[in-house]
Amino acid sequence: MSDKKERTEISSLGEFGLINKLKQHFTLEQKSSIKGIDDDAAIIQPHEGEQMVVSTDMLMENVHFDLAFHPLKHLGYKAVTCNISDIAAMNAIPTQITVALALSSRFSVEAIEELYQGIHKACQDYKVDLIGGDTTSSRSGLAICITAIGQAPAQRIVCRNTAQKGDVICVSGDLGGAYVGLQILNREKQVYQAAPLAQPKLDGYSYILERYLKPEARMDLVHELAALDIVPTSMIDISDGLSSELLHICKQSKLGAVIFEENIPLAAQTIETATNDLNMSVLTCALNGGDDYELLFTIKQSDYEKLKNHPDIHFIGYMREAESGVSLATRAGQNITINAQGWQHF
Amino acid sequence: MSDKKERTEISSLGEFGLINKLKQHFTLEQKSSIKGIDDDAAIIQPHEGEQMVVSTDMLMENVHFDLAFHPLKHLGYKAVTCNISDIAAMNAIPTQITVALALSSRFSVEAIEELYQGIHKACQDYKVDLIGGDTTSSRSGLAICITAIGQAPAQRIVCRNTAQKGDVICVSGDLGGAYVGLQILNREKQVYQAAPLAQPKLDGYSYILERYLKPEARMDLVHELAALDIVPTSMIDISDGLSSELLHICKQSKLGAVIFEENIPLAAQTIETATNDLNMSVLTCALNGGDDYELLFTIKQSDYEKLKNHPDIHFIGYMREAESGVSLATRAGQNITINAQGWQHF
Repeated sequence: MSDKKERTEISSLGEFGLINKLKQHFTLEQKSSIKGIDDDAAIIQPHEGEQMVVSTDMLMENVHFDLAFHPLKHLGYKAVTCNISDIAAMNAIPTQITVALALSSRFSVEAIEELYQGIHKACQDYKVDLIGGDTTSSRSGLAICITAIGQAPAQRIVCRNTAQKGDVICVSGDLGGAYVGLQILNREKQVYQAAPLAQPKLDGYSYILERYLKPEARMDLVHELAALDIVPTSMIDISDGLSSELLHICKQSKLGAVIFEENIPLAAQTIETATNDLNMSVLTCALNGGDDYELLFTIKQSDYEKLKNHPDIHFIGYMREAESGVSLATRAGQNITINAQGWQHF
Repeated sequence: MSDKKERTEISSLGEFGLINKLKQHFTLEQKSSIKGIDDDAAIIQPHEGEQMVVSTDMLMENVHFDLAFHPLKHLGYKAVTCNISDIAAMNAIPTQITVALALSSRFSVEAIEELYQGIHKACQDYKVDLIGGDTTSSRSGLAICITAIGQAPAQRIVCRNTAQKGDVICVSGDLGGAYVGLQILNREKQVYQAAPLAQPKLDGYSYILERYLKPEARMDLVHELAALDIVPTSMIDISDGLSSELLHICKQSKLGAVIFEENIPLAAQTIETATNDLNMSVLTCALNGGDDYELLFTIKQSDYEKLKNHPDIHFIGYMREAESGVSLATRAGQNITINAQGWQHF
């Protein structure tokens, strides 16, 4: 957070001045957005015959992000991504967001503008309108709370509790990269704190750093599945690690599952960095590391043919009866019971 | 925050254990609530032919509330009230809320349950469903972010920018009480800090303390106006003080206004406490004090007859052309220009 450049104090603008400055770049593009910022509440005209989905996430400084290495613009983008990813996981199309921010006077107007640049970029990329929120002060850290709203016909909305026995378990992208990227950032932060003149060694880590700092919600896949006329039988986004999310689907669908180690998608940089730099099991990173924002979903076996050649969807296992439990079949031929090891907030 | 009673650490339950414990008292009552907590997002089936309104507010410890004197149950209730009040100000019917909480380990499970008892009571009183949210940790204070959703036919939704010249300016309830109540609470906190064995002197202040600690959103009036077939020409809730809110309506409606000091509703206890205990101008408290959550609205002159005998609606002035400005006509016959003096967060 060292902006040596211009520094305008928030107090010189006041709350309404700040809001006016920030909102000027945001316009309403969605047909369903009738009224945005400027009133007690925003107004939405729901798409005819569609249901709405709503998700809220709160991000707290030094819990969910560290401003020592998270550029504010990327943070704004990521805060939106987390929420859009929840809408994607419902197989719905995001339409609007509200953003509530609490910040202390250590933030300059320029810093907040940077944060909003990231939010604005995300609104453009995900085609959602910023329709409201709150900007207030905090005694200490930065808090960001975003609510995302999406819409879809009822028959396309996908929950976690509707997987069926025999369904194929699919995962998009690759896993564990964000977690490994975070470990590298933490390592370099410690080096910097011990020797402030040392240059951070981040060359060669660009893929995993981007996975952590600027993840993308997989709206591309939501659109592709629609184009292929596939409705997943269940879906969840991977924010807390594959193990935890798979257990949610199993518990709520009252089923067991088996996944195969050899099928879990891993990027080369994730494998190399975990193994060589961090001396960690890359499998553990993929199972238990958070922040990937990929999609975990199940499909009917009859839909497998349509998806089997998709370059970015991986078939990692299948759903089975609850009595058989939830397990990982390793390359070595062992069966390991999967326990939740996702983020422990408390 | 001295709960000497039972103390269960959040860590003993974990995030999901805590959420399971808290959610058990909440059920879905609204027909439009299809799915609540338990998935990536909640699902709402919008009322046919109606628009939706959405409002988000963030409350931060030691900025918006002080746990030294704000009981957690009342705080939970008030957090919901602030948001429902925004929905009321749109002349819409609230239907759902999401609640995002960030809290540190100094909160016990019992403390959080108390907070949720207040949220639950508010959900019952305002007939809204808690459909989702987030429970996460904070490095320092408590943060509460609530998003409220409401619905109404488009022709009944009321904005701030649609007042007309000649419209009668109405205000509900009485003003300044919450602000005066807060001053008494702050005074007694200082006494307590100086002499911890001193008993707080709160007798005789119950009305104004309740105004601050447990305000009610005026949904009763939204229903009454509908029953009388009145649609206000503009409306806003009074969260930042009458001056600030009136200026919002004037600015957005591109009009001026005059209000009369003698018509501003004040409770006897507000007047006595401001004048005798605090040596403050009660008019200043009413104009600039926040947290009243009454409604400020304008009606056509032709609707005045229907409302003139209403015991809790007060007619404080009228809208006029922008060139005449926004002013207060005092009892002494002076005209004072109204400036915004609402809460300065920064």
